[in-house]
Amino acid sequence: MKNLHVELGERSYPIYVGSGLLDNPSLIAPHVKGDECLIVSNETVAPLYLDRLRSSLNVAKVDSLVLPDGEKFKNLDTLKTIYDELLARRHSRGTTLIALGGGVVGDMTGFAAATYQRGVNFIQVPTTLLSQVDSSVGGKTGVNHPLGKNMIGAFYQPVAVIADIDSLRTLPDREFRSGIAEVIKYGLICDASFYHWLRDNASRINARDEEILAEIVYRCCKAKAEVVARDERESNIRAILNLGHTFGHAIEAVENYQGLLHGEAVAVGMLMAADLSWRLGWLDKDAVESARSLLDALGLPLTAPATMSPEAFRSAMALDKKVARGVVRLVLLRAIGEAVVTGDYPVEKLHDTLEAFC
Amino acid sequence: MKNLHVELGERSYPIYVGSGLLDNPSLIAPHVKGDECLIVSNETVAPLYLDRLRSSLNVAKVDSLVLPDGEKFKNLDTLKTIYDELLARRHSRGTTLIALGGGVVGDMTGFAAATYQRGVNFIQVPTTLLSQVDSSVGGKTGVNHPLGKNMIGAFYQPVAVIADIDSLRTLPDREFRSGIAEVIKYGLICDASFYHWLRDNASRINARDEEILAEIVYRCCKAKAEVVARDERESNIRAILNLGHTFGHAIEAVENYQGLLHGEAVAVGMLMAADLSWRLGWLDKDAVESARSLLDALGLPLTAPATMSPEAFRSAMALDKKVARGVVRLVLLRAIGEAVVTGDYPVEKLHDTLEAFC
Repeated sequence: MKNLHVELGERSYPIYVGSGLLDNPSLIAPHVKGDECLIVSNETVAPLYLDRLRSSLNVAKVDSLVLPDGEKFKNLDTLKTIYDELLARRHSRGTTLIALGGGVVGDMTGFAAATYQRGVNFIQVPTTLLSQVDSSVGGKTGVNHPLGKNMIGAFYQPVAVIADIDSLRTLPDREFRSGIAEVIKYGLICDASFYHWLRDNASRINARDEEILAEIVYRCCKAKAEVVARDERESNIRAILNLGHTFGHAIEAVENYQGLLHGEAVAVGMLMAADLSWRLGWLDKDAVESARSLLDALGLPLTAPATMSPEAFRSAMALDKKVARGVVRLVLLRAIGEAVVTGDYPVEKLHDTLEAFC
Repeated sequence: MKNLHVELGERSYPIYVGSGLLDNPSLIAPHVKGDECLIVSNETVAPLYLDRLRSSLNVAKVDSLVLPDGEKFKNLDTLKTIYDELLARRHSRGTTLIALGGGVVGDMTGFAAATYQRGVNFIQVPTTLLSQVDSSVGGKTGVNHPLGKNMIGAFYQPVAVIADIDSLRTLPDREFRSGIAEVIKYGLICDASFYHWLRDNASRINARDEEILAEIVYRCCKAKAEVVARDERESNIRAILNLGHTFGHAIEAVENYQGLLHGEAVAVGMLMAADLSWRLGWLDKDAVESARSLLDALGLPLTAPATMSPEAFRSAMALDKKVARGVVRLVLLRAIGEAVVTGDYPVEKLHDTLEAFC
């Protein structure tokens, strides 16, 4: 097992990465504060891991709630079922919420924890690659609105993140690849040597080699923890973590969260960001092609789905959280391993990119 | 005009108390950060004050949303209409939300501000006595759940509170008296001399004497600002502000927020707390009678409504946020001007109080 720490003063917390962590009572017990807790999971993950997690909890009252699976359920209606459960079972302000599942479960459970009785204790047990390398760390919680992704939410840090890489074995192929997209993101935005290491190890990644996966989760958590420690509330540097996300969120929203998975949409979005960076003269054509071939080698989509038009992109992007004074701020690349956040680009170049990918 | 400051480090903010503040552009303008804002009000307050407030804003885009009036609308469904409006009108993370109205408008708008795009700028313009002396200060925001009051919420501070006492003139009688209950609360919990001053000025209060009202709003805001500065997240001392609220919330919840107003329910609850304090031998019978006669002189109810039974109280109180390990922690009185928070009392005495008031 490897240990990391997110340094956020009194909100600091550990991340545990390794094998066989899910039912290790010595890991989770110190982080459950009171004598009651609610495990929130989904219908896919619960049959596999809920009993194992429950067995590691030495708490008088352990309730559980199983949500439907999928991004399309990440909304206020599903959130309300968490509040209903907490109140029906009379959970007090001293309760602990435990998210067992992927990013959707983690984001919704975290937001419920942030807002139930104005804030209760919260633990992340991510079981997908995407949530282990990205969404479980850093305290972004929330739900989608029909007009935009993650539009309702809060910054709320967990007290611990327990990433058991054994759970990646049961991950369906598309889910796994969706997580890989966020892994590549870290290479593109801040770590060229990690990017090249990924390229060198593409076949072992596709084979889900355990040693490689442990290394991937550890390095991504480390990168994310460092960025979050520097800028918890995304005043500046943290925004680079959104590479590909403005384009990707537009795709997800237009497809009503029932088309491409989040990581797949981000993969397309990262390539669009690379393309636009090239059109602006910031990035070599070779670097764009390298990114395209790495995404391709790892089984990720390279063009926007047929549902998308330039107009659909423009309309959905205008609602992005990174809009400031009418200008869409984008994360772009100066080189592989070097991202910038900017609203300072000729809008025609953006339109050229949209045309090229639709 | 009088000025106060809530001292909370980087979240500190001013409270302005006085006459003619609502359309004074020099007060509000410095607190609107971007070039867009949404005023949230209700159908009772908007016709009286919305245009005046709007005229004081020198911002490119000023939208407004008028909610239905009443505690029974303080729920997730109404909250959703605020998100819908913000997104339909494409408000960015740089927007400012302004709450124009009473506690319900303030609590819901504050929670929307806390959670829209993970937090936007927020200004309180309270127009009722209750919101001016209590709910607009201190950052408690949220909505009710069918199973309990304020069960979903966040601590989120405004950047300014503008309390225009002129707006108290148009307040319906019951609303005014509901606010007076919270005023008496400050005397009971921490300021015996203020309590006696209120008793001496009961007839001028009933006449809504302007000078008296300005003094009341100022002194209550000062008391609240001091308590909040010491304990923003209610780890300890802040809980005394809930005198009468556990009993009061039970009444409101059982009546489905359509019976007694919040302050009326708190008035009954404070008297119940005084009664229990007397049964525990902590408070003189004379003090209980003094509180009863002051509440009576100021037109507040003294017994629980006919809908309440001891069993209804017990069941609703078991869901209170102040429950810890199955025990209901209550705010009780050691003397007029001295409150304590405790779960350490014989439960039969509580049952005696419930019997006495039903």
